Amino acid sequence: MDKKEFALKQHEEWQGKLEIACRAKVKTPEDLAVAYTPGVAEPCLKISEDTDLSYKYTRRGNMVAVVTDGTAVLGLGDIGPEAGMPVMEGKCVLFKEFGGVDAFPLCIRSKNVDDIVNTVALLAGSFGGVNLEDISAPRCFEIERKLKERCDIPIFHDDQHGTAVVTAAAMLNALKFTGRKLSDVKVVTSGAGAAGIAIIKLLVKLGLKTVIMCDRHGAIYEGRDNLNPEKEEMAKISNRGFEKGSLADVIKGADVFIGVSAPGTVTEEMVKTMAPNPILFPMANPVPEIMPDLAKEAGAAVVGTGRSDFPNQINNVLAFPGIFRGALDVRASDINDEMKVAAAYAIADLIPDNEITADYIIPNPFDERVAKAVAKAVAEAARKTGVARI
Amino acid sequence: MDKKEFALKQHEEWQGKLEIACRAKVKTPEDLAVAYTPGVAEPCLKISEDTDLSYKYTRRGNMVAVVTDGTAVLGLGDIGPEAGMPVMEGKCVLFKEFGGVDAFPLCIRSKNVDDIVNTVALLAGSFGGVNLEDISAPRCFEIERKLKERCDIPIFHDDQHGTAVVTAAAMLNALKFTGRKLSDVKVVTSGAGAAGIAIIKLLVKLGLKTVIMCDRHGAIYEGRDNLNPEKEEMAKISNRGFEKGSLADVIKGADVFIGVSAPGTVTEEMVKTMAPNPILFPMANPVPEIMPDLAKEAGAAVVGTGRSDFPNQINNVLAFPGIFRGALDVRASDINDEMKVAAAYAIADLIPDNEITADYIIPNPFDERVAKAVAKAVAEAARKTGVARI
Repeated sequence: MDKKEFALKQHEEWQGKLEIACRAKVKTPEDLAVAYTPGVAEPCLKISEDTDLSYKYTRRGNMVAVVTDGTAVLGLGDIGPEAGMPVMEGKCVLFKEFGGVDAFPLCIRSKNVDDIVNTVALLAGSFGGVNLEDISAPRCFEIERKLKERCDIPIFHDDQHGTAVVTAAAMLNALKFTGRKLSDVKVVTSGAGAAGIAIIKLLVKLGLKTVIMCDRHGAIYEGRDNLNPEKEEMAKISNRGFEKGSLADVIKGADVFIGVSAPGTVTEEMVKTMAPNPILFPMANPVPEIMPDLAKEAGAAVVGTGRSDFPNQINNVLAFPGIFRGALDVRASDINDEMKVAAAYAIADLIPDNEITADYIIPNPFDERVAKAVAKAVAEAARKTGVARI
Repeated sequence: MDKKEFALKQHEEWQGKLEIACRAKVKTPEDLAVAYTPGVAEPCLKISEDTDLSYKYTRRGNMVAVVTDGTAVLGLGDIGPEAGMPVMEGKCVLFKEFGGVDAFPLCIRSKNVDDIVNTVALLAGSFGGVNLEDISAPRCFEIERKLKERCDIPIFHDDQHGTAVVTAAAMLNALKFTGRKLSDVKVVTSGAGAAGIAIIKLLVKLGLKTVIMCDRHGAIYEGRDNLNPEKEEMAKISNRGFEKGSLADVIKGADVFIGVSAPGTVTEEMVKTMAPNPILFPMANPVPEIMPDLAKEAGAAVVGTGRSDFPNQINNVLAFPGIFRGALDVRASDINDEMKVAAAYAIADLIPDNEITADYIIPNPFDERVAKAVAKAVAEAARKTGVARI
């Protein structure tokens, strides 16, 4: 049986990768009288006096909604809400196993921004946070913005911010390894969708000054055609030299390449035109923009991909479980930029400077220290920035 | 510590009566590659080709949404969605413990019928059924009706139909015990809300012909003032003698009293005016319309209440876990009247005729035979009526 068949068979046997477990037992009439009527009236009455007590008497404070509309699932595209469920269930399993966070998948039968926003906003009283997942750009930006306005709990689009945090963590150590400073390097991206934009925004927060983003039409610059509002915004804070042309043109002399686009976008020839000892993160999945061995042969000093079968896997599971763990622990009302920055440093700093190598710039996804370190850093940043509520 | 304090402390210790458990383990990179990327792509692709396969590859087929807006929680009234959560969590625990059904609580921050309908309808692809709970009348009728129109999964308002099924089951055995036929008796109700109307509709299905429903204005008759559309509908199928007056007036000569109203509505004097050996189900909670000992002193042959500390507890937990178990087992598209009737007979028939006594007309909530018998009967009825999809 090949791997695909095995995965399918396994999913059939599981009949769902998660289920509900009871923390309260009801084996006797006495149990029932506490967990249900008449005892349950007491916590109900307390919460009706003070809604915040829902965090004390219900699961809300540890419960995250994992929400999709099924429009950008994995690399499969718009496959519909039901078809997105296996990914959402998987995400929920990772939340629990890596962060101790209870997460429940909600796949919405609408692609309309306001439908999705209303649905999630009306359910915000049942959850301590919302993880948006696999929603296509540019709708994901508007959905996230509107939900942040309407909800009193953290709204986090993992495809943007989780990816950005883990990429930034890898970047911090890759720069250390190659003796560079973020403020001095030139970064070029292939891809200017949700992930690409979030990565660059976070790197700019961390000190990046020189960056050119490329989409399928080539370098993005202020005034170019074919820019959606999000790309227009990026055009204003990137490519201040107004370089035009293809990725092959603008990658020349770059210190760093970040790929969140498609297989085969980068050739060995292009790598050879970069600055000496370049850093490459070709993260297209499952086939990267350039294969790591080819990138290294062409001179790359460090290569990170999204794949588990190469060194330096830039995997969101390093970020989201700990980020939500930390946010929930202090009942944060938001997951803000400072919390994301803290998470990136927490991941990067788990590897002491003298242990960083070309093949070890980021911890292994199964490194048990990660979620704890991220949670602690995120909780502290929430407190410092005034979004912690306990 | 008194019972209320204990219940509160227990809820604080639980911090939620349910949590998420993982059916798939992710302890190794190999696990991750099956449960998440890249393996998860396989079930996603299959479901995108045939949405029904979501029942095969995800938890949907065993997952029920327990939905409220918090407007009619227990006897506490409109306490808000967050305050309704302890009851919804409790309900989910009962679903799992009694029926093996995974149920997840969703408390909606809106009292608007269309908001609630939209929210639930857009999430219908994530669930195998919906249990509406503690939504105030008459909004609950419209919400249920609209959801049944829009959704391809069973929509079941337990406060109506669960109560009706269990009351009907108790009635079948109480009639046997007192040597009556449903088609011959006169039934009078106190209460014409969601539960009262559903009970009478189901009893009419079972053969009841003579019934007078009372609300706070007294007997309901065709043409009376102060009738909402649901009561108007009931006025057309009940009280064909057009009796007017108070409950005390119309209860005279009645064989059966059904109370879904308020404590103290029925006096001993009123019971004495009923037919000989009357059946009384004063089900107001926690304090019934008349206490069982007083009803018996006044001549009642059988008394059933909602309370666990008296015999004959008419408790919804006898119905909903088995009803959903049966509906999910055959992937029913609806829970129709025939399935409810089958459930009522399944519950009643668990007590052989020669074991029925005045204090044993309905099984104990912890009788493990109940959910299985109900599930089997409901699944069969679903098949017979063409709503079973497997």
